[in-house]
Amino acid sequence: MKKRVIMIVEDNYEDQEVDSPLAFLQEKGFQVDLVGLKKNKNLKGKKGASKIVTTHAISDVRAEDYDGLIIPGGWAPDKLRIIDGVLDFVRAMEGDQKPIAAICHGPQVLINAEVVKGKRLTAYRAIWKDLENAGAEVLNKPVVVDGNLITSRHPGDLKYFNRAFLGALERG
Amino acid sequence: MKKRVIMIVEDNYEDQEVDSPLAFLQEKGFQVDLVGLKKNKNLKGKKGASKIVTTHAISDVRAEDYDGLIIPGGWAPDKLRIIDGVLDFVRAMEGDQKPIAAICHGPQVLINAEVVKGKRLTAYRAIWKDLENAGAEVLNKPVVVDGNLITSRHPGDLKYFNRAFLGALERG
Repeated sequence: MKKRVIMIVEDNYEDQEVDSPLAFLQEKGFQVDLVGLKKNKNLKGKKGASKIVTTHAISDVRAEDYDGLIIPGGWAPDKLRIIDGVLDFVRAMEGDQKPIAAICHGPQVLINAEVVKGKRLTAYRAIWKDLENAGAEVLNKPVVVDGNLITSRHPGDLKYFNRAFLGALERG
Repeated sequence: MKKRVIMIVEDNYEDQEVDSPLAFLQEKGFQVDLVGLKKNKNLKGKKGASKIVTTHAISDVRAEDYDGLIIPGGWAPDKLRIIDGVLDFVRAMEGDQKPIAAICHGPQVLINAEVVKGKRLTAYRAIWKDLENAGAEVLNKPVVVDGNLITSRHPGDLKYFNRAFLGALERG
């Protein structure tokens, strides 16, 4: 059976941070579900270079059905971080210590899910202060792996991010 | 002599949160300088409904020349919050206890300037958690005034925000 990964998305995501991991993981044989606030919703990247359609609504998925979680950046996390269903899902994946990958502004969702305290991670520079205030240790590196948590700074880090997430999924 | 207010702006600001206070304060007789990373730069609102041109670069202004500071929301604060010159300016205004007004995502800049600890304030809901983690007490009200600090949640609060800022400028 294919391993299943959930990508949590909304409008104005960072185009490459959806397209690149999606293509990479599908090529490696993973099923990647695109989950937003509603099912079958057309979403656009903030740069206008990417379009996707959600496969599920967050209210219709269960953490036990997934092997890994990925949260792309852009402006989507600003919307997703205040949705209870999203935060409950993140906490359930963290509770099971399944791989959680977040890039750029994606870690904003992790702040609201309260899963970053004591963790070593990275993110887009604009939110470093918020992560430090939430109790995380922020490193300026292309990818940081701390247990089940994989984080990167921006689209330029995607090569390292994708590979580190794959490694965690294969170990998990 | 006209009282001078500085509005700190960058691209993708929340259109109404620039246009409304700008028109309101000018109508009340204030000089409003539009200050960004560069002088004479064309900036656009995130909704495409507003355009402005900066009057000064942040590196060319001094806090002692201003009677009040306003930080609109949108995605501009994500850019401004990591600019040392912006943070130094905010700290200088706070040091002199001059009126500081921030709306929506504007308070993100106040987090990086480290001026929110122990303050009562409000903001766009997505960043409440970041403000609490920075040591602020967040209230769900159209406008919150705590000493020299005036804050609001979103464009729907602008009527209250503009009036409260005017009150602080007239007292100051």
